[in-house]
Amino acid sequence: MAFPEHKRKQSGELALIDRIRRDSAARATGRVGLGIGDDCAVLRPPPGHDVLVTTDFCLEGRHFRRDWHSAESAGHRCLARGLSDLAAMGAEPMAAFLSLALPAEIERNWTDGFLRGLRSLADEFQVPLAGGDTAQSPSTHVLADIVLVGSAPAGRALYRSGAEPGDSLYVTGALGGAAAELLAMQAGEGLLAGRNAPGQHPQTYPEPRLAVGAALLRRGLATACIDLSDGLSSDLSHLCEESGVSAEIELAALPLHPLAVGKVGLALHGGEDYELLFAARQGSRVPGRIAGIRVTRIGRVVERTRRRMVQIDGRGKRTRLEAGGWEHGIG
Amino acid sequence: MAFPEHKRKQSGELALIDRIRRDSAARATGRVGLGIGDDCAVLRPPPGHDVLVTTDFCLEGRHFRRDWHSAESAGHRCLARGLSDLAAMGAEPMAAFLSLALPAEIERNWTDGFLRGLRSLADEFQVPLAGGDTAQSPSTHVLADIVLVGSAPAGRALYRSGAEPGDSLYVTGALGGAAAELLAMQAGEGLLAGRNAPGQHPQTYPEPRLAVGAALLRRGLATACIDLSDGLSSDLSHLCEESGVSAEIELAALPLHPLAVGKVGLALHGGEDYELLFAARQGSRVPGRIAGIRVTRIGRVVERTRRRMVQIDGRGKRTRLEAGGWEHGIG
Repeated sequence: MAFPEHKRKQSGELALIDRIRRDSAARATGRVGLGIGDDCAVLRPPPGHDVLVTTDFCLEGRHFRRDWHSAESAGHRCLARGLSDLAAMGAEPMAAFLSLALPAEIERNWTDGFLRGLRSLADEFQVPLAGGDTAQSPSTHVLADIVLVGSAPAGRALYRSGAEPGDSLYVTGALGGAAAELLAMQAGEGLLAGRNAPGQHPQTYPEPRLAVGAALLRRGLATACIDLSDGLSSDLSHLCEESGVSAEIELAALPLHPLAVGKVGLALHGGEDYELLFAARQGSRVPGRIAGIRVTRIGRVVERTRRRMVQIDGRGKRTRLEAGGWEHGIG
Repeated sequence: MAFPEHKRKQSGELALIDRIRRDSAARATGRVGLGIGDDCAVLRPPPGHDVLVTTDFCLEGRHFRRDWHSAESAGHRCLARGLSDLAAMGAEPMAAFLSLALPAEIERNWTDGFLRGLRSLADEFQVPLAGGDTAQSPSTHVLADIVLVGSAPAGRALYRSGAEPGDSLYVTGALGGAAAELLAMQAGEGLLAGRNAPGQHPQTYPEPRLAVGAALLRRGLATACIDLSDGLSSDLSHLCEESGVSAEIELAALPLHPLAVGKVGLALHGGEDYELLFAARQGSRVPGRIAGIRVTRIGRVVERTRRRMVQIDGRGKRTRLEAGGWEHGIG
C-alpha cells in the first residue's frame, strides 16, 4: 500500500501517516500520478526510459545509532543510501517510498527530526515521497526501509559490468571521511552537530552524486560504475567481479577527505562515502570536475585472467589488495 | 541496492544472498533487464503503461508470529500483501523486491521455508524477485519489507476514488475466513499445517486476486476498487472517503467463508482476506464469476452528503456501520 491505515494503527501512527501525506501531497510532481492514499502509487516514466528500483534497509543498531546519529542525520542517511544507488546507475530519481516502524516509546521530536532530515534531502533532489508503510516496531528499534524508483534512457543505465582492461579508474569527491567521522563519533568527539558546509559531515550527511552519475550517462563516459557504500576495496571488487577484470590502485593518487588525512586505510576500506567509482576508456577525456565535483584518476583496469586487485604504494611497491578490510562497527 | 553485499555481512547472510540470487537468475523475465547484483534493478514497462509501486512491512510480532505461522506461510503472506495491492489497482506484476533482516540465531530451515513460501506464490504469478536488501536483525525478530512493482495501461489503473451514488458494491470470494483461521490458531487448534486446497487456509495462504483485478480493468467494469486487507468495514470506509460517498451493506448478502459461517462480524471487520471490494455502475453487467472467482453484490453506493456507512440486517433494520470493529491480535 501507499501508507495504508492499518487495523492496529495507533493515534501516533495515524498522525505520522497524516503528516507524511500532507507533506508529500504538496510536493507531488508530474511523474507521480497518484501518491499516498491508494493501494499503490502510480508513476509515469518518461517515454523510452527504463525504470530503476533499489531498496535499502536503515535499521537502528545496524545502519545508524540513535546515540550517535541525530534524528535528522538518520533520516538523511536513509534516503542518501537509495539516491546513491540511483546515482551509480546514472538514473534520475522519480519517487521515494519509506517503510517506517517506530517503537511505542519514541519521542515525537525524534520522528519529526527523522522526517525533516529525509525531507530536506528529498527536496534538494526534488524527489517526491510517494508512499510506503508504517507500523509499530516489534522491538525498541527504529526500523526503516527506503525504496527509490528512478528512470534512465532505455538500455543506457550504467552497470558494474562494462569495465575493460586498459580502462582508467576514477572516483568522485574525497574518500575516508565517513569512516573518519564515525571513528570520531565512537570516540565521543561529538560530531553529532547539525549539517554545516557541504562535505563537512561525510558520515552524518553524505551527498549522493546524482548529478555526476547523470552526466556520466549523458556523456557516455563510464564503461562501468558503482557507488562507494561498502568501501573502495569492497566496491572495486564488485566492479571487477561483475566486469570479469583485475584492477590496480595507486595509493598516492587516492583523494583523502580532510578528516582522513594520512589515513589511507580509511580511504581504501572505510565505507559509506557514497562517492562514485567508475571506469572510462583509456584516452577518453574525463574532466577534473563533473557537475562541480572533483574527479580523480586512481588506477586502471588490467587483465582478465587473474581477477585480482593490486595496490601500488608511493615507491612503486605492488601488493595484493583485499576487499573489505574495515569494520565500521555501527551494528 | 539489489541485494548488496554489506561490509558486516556474515557467512549466513552471504549464503542467503547467493541462494536468492541463484534462484532469481533462473526466473528473470523479459521485463527485468537486470536483477540482483547491481546497484539497482532495471525494469522495462510495456510502452504506454504506468508503473505502480507498493511497499508493505511484514514484521514478526506485528504481521505474523513464528509460533503461529509456519515459515512457508510467513513468506507467502509477505508477497501476498503486495500482490493484493497490485490486484486492487488492476495492475500486472513486473517484479518483487524483498528486504529481509534475520536474527543471528535463526534456523536455516526457517529461512528456507520463508523463501520457499514466497517463491511458490511468486512462481504462481510469474513474478521475478529482482532485488532487495539483507541485514542482520537488530533484535530477535524477523523483519521483512516487500516491494511490488507492476504496470497498467496509462491512466487506466483502478483507484479508490471513482465510486458514484447509484453504483453497486461487490466483493470477490468469501469473507471472514482469514480472521476465523487466526482465531483458531490463537485457540491452539493447530491450523499451521501446509497449504492444501485453494481457499482452505485464508489466513495462512491468502490468494491475491490479480486475475480479477486485471479483468475489471480490461473490461472497464469497476468505478473504484480496494483490497480487503484491514477488513470490509475499514476498507469500505477508505473507498467511501476517497470517493466522497456513503454506502449501504446488506448483511444477508455477505458471502461467508466456510470457516466463518454464522460469524458475520468476522466478515465485516476481520482483516486479511485479501479479496477485492469494488463498485460498478448500476445496470452494468457484472458476472457472477470473474476469472473463476465468485463475485457477490453486497450493497450499494448512496449519497454524497452524509458520508457514512450503513448496515442492513436480514429484517431490513438499518444501523450505522463503524470502521474497524475487530483487532486481529497478532502484534
